[in-house]
Amino acid sequence: MRGVWLEDGTFRLDHDLPLPTTAPHEVLIRVSLAGICGTDLELARGYASFRGIPGHEFVGRVASAPEHEEWMGRRVVGEINVTCGRCGTCRAGRRTHCDHRTVLGISGRQGAFAEYVTLPVENLHHVPDTMPDDVAVFTEPLAAALQIQEQITIDSTDRVVVIGDGRLGTLVAQTLALTGCRLLVIGRHPAKLEVLRQLGIATGLAADLPERTADVAVECTGNPTGFGVARRALRPCGTLVLKSTYHGPAHVDLSRIVVDEMTVIGSRCGPFTPALALLARGDIDVASLVDARYPMAAAVQAFEHAARPGTRKVLLEAD
Amino acid sequence: MRGVWLEDGTFRLDHDLPLPTTAPHEVLIRVSLAGICGTDLELARGYASFRGIPGHEFVGRVASAPEHEEWMGRRVVGEINVTCGRCGTCRAGRRTHCDHRTVLGISGRQGAFAEYVTLPVENLHHVPDTMPDDVAVFTEPLAAALQIQEQITIDSTDRVVVIGDGRLGTLVAQTLALTGCRLLVIGRHPAKLEVLRQLGIATGLAADLPERTADVAVECTGNPTGFGVARRALRPCGTLVLKSTYHGPAHVDLSRIVVDEMTVIGSRCGPFTPALALLARGDIDVASLVDARYPMAAAVQAFEHAARPGTRKVLLEAD
Repeated sequence: MRGVWLEDGTFRLDHDLPLPTTAPHEVLIRVSLAGICGTDLELARGYASFRGIPGHEFVGRVASAPEHEEWMGRRVVGEINVTCGRCGTCRAGRRTHCDHRTVLGISGRQGAFAEYVTLPVENLHHVPDTMPDDVAVFTEPLAAALQIQEQITIDSTDRVVVIGDGRLGTLVAQTLALTGCRLLVIGRHPAKLEVLRQLGIATGLAADLPERTADVAVECTGNPTGFGVARRALRPCGTLVLKSTYHGPAHVDLSRIVVDEMTVIGSRCGPFTPALALLARGDIDVASLVDARYPMAAAVQAFEHAARPGTRKVLLEAD
Repeated sequence: MRGVWLEDGTFRLDHDLPLPTTAPHEVLIRVSLAGICGTDLELARGYASFRGIPGHEFVGRVASAPEHEEWMGRRVVGEINVTCGRCGTCRAGRRTHCDHRTVLGISGRQGAFAEYVTLPVENLHHVPDTMPDDVAVFTEPLAAALQIQEQITIDSTDRVVVIGDGRLGTLVAQTLALTGCRLLVIGRHPAKLEVLRQLGIATGLAADLPERTADVAVECTGNPTGFGVARRALRPCGTLVLKSTYHGPAHVDLSRIVVDEMTVIGSRCGPFTPALALLARGDIDVASLVDARYPMAAAVQAFEHAARPGTRKVLLEAD
């Protein structure tokens, strides 16, 4: 089959990849549309030491389901952590952290930038017929944004600052706006901030960063400088939510965390069910996030485009 | 009066410091005994850019209390954050983070390594007559240790690892042991670990660090390397409590915090009332923490001693 192969920091189109085989309780999915995420670009920089087919945001149709015929032909999105269900971590209810997990297109499992991908049936979510592929493909990143509210309570009196106006920041901001909190997004790109303003979300540039006033700051910049910006915005005893993953360490003034008694919370994958529900209701604008759509034949150009500073979502579609 | 003056990284004994004057609602305290803390040594390395009389762990006797005669002659310890009570932070109940605070011997306020010190009457706690000075002087660091349990709940099923067997780590370990949790202290000094073992606390060297199993890890090393050690001990979604303050940044793999969805909590000053109660009941061993006791005349030697690697508490007494 055709697909994208990442090795030594380079994405290349491969026409002769083996068709993936399904393990027990897995289904084979024909990928319709897949989204390029910041994490995919970080993989090319060495993050997670991944080699293989990347891609973890996708929508597709079940093409083979030997043990689960009821899923045949259904249009699906899929949770990206494949877990054992038996280890202590799974049994403690932290399945996305399974000791033996593989992660779609990130760790130990071939991803969705290909004609076909496999996933266990328990990872699948049916996509409502009325939802277009280019909306459904945002389920995974939107779920990740919603994870914040699985971890901390945000209410309408909270002053919340989102740092970053990229793909992740824009989704996070929209989910947080639904809480009615006092929200401000700090970004670098006037055009992107304008999109948020159109959605009724307050925005500002770096110079507008509130100092030591936010109850919650969410770091969505995808680079190490975002941490310090988020920290400066926080009041004492505030909560800093880390959403970005990237390759390499950051220089952090840990003593400042102690003196200000801050809480820093790492936040990763989130719940697909509310993400699909929000998308189905049209509560989240994703159309304005799409910068380009490339056929698989032009995959290399798609990654080049996605890597250009300031690019939002680039989609890769079956052709 | 005599006292220790810190300037340009050097502690010197000064015989001619001005007697501090009391602001409204403050009392003048004659210091009996003061403890040298890791933070004092960090001040000399540039932490908090402090210049003046350091010292924030002390016990003394009220020598002048113009507006609060009831405190005259009483033996006291004192909370170190002097707060306004009126700013938004104070009114939100986070008084130790007051926007306008001064901190005894650390920030904007002369400290206790001197014959006399001043504090507002609201910062004072009466020391029970039966409690010796060399026990009462541990109230402030013990309160700091107890702050952890003001911030997170630790119960008997939790696996808790304390990183560091120094002054702070030993006090933290003793307070955590009172919860009945499954506690392990990882340190570098067999003699100090032996003291903890005598108290019934499990200990180990670096090689004994549990990997990815602890529910809670408490960083008490006083240097940037402790963070990574604490992180390695934690299970996914675990809680890393930061107690150390030191000068300079640390290199932190923030993406690891995201992927493991860790919570990092900074923890600083704590409640004096339970600290005094535990000391009064004899629940915390502090005698074994004292390495040396110097008269004020030998203050410079006292700081030299305290700075030697592996030293626990060095006390400075009025002479």
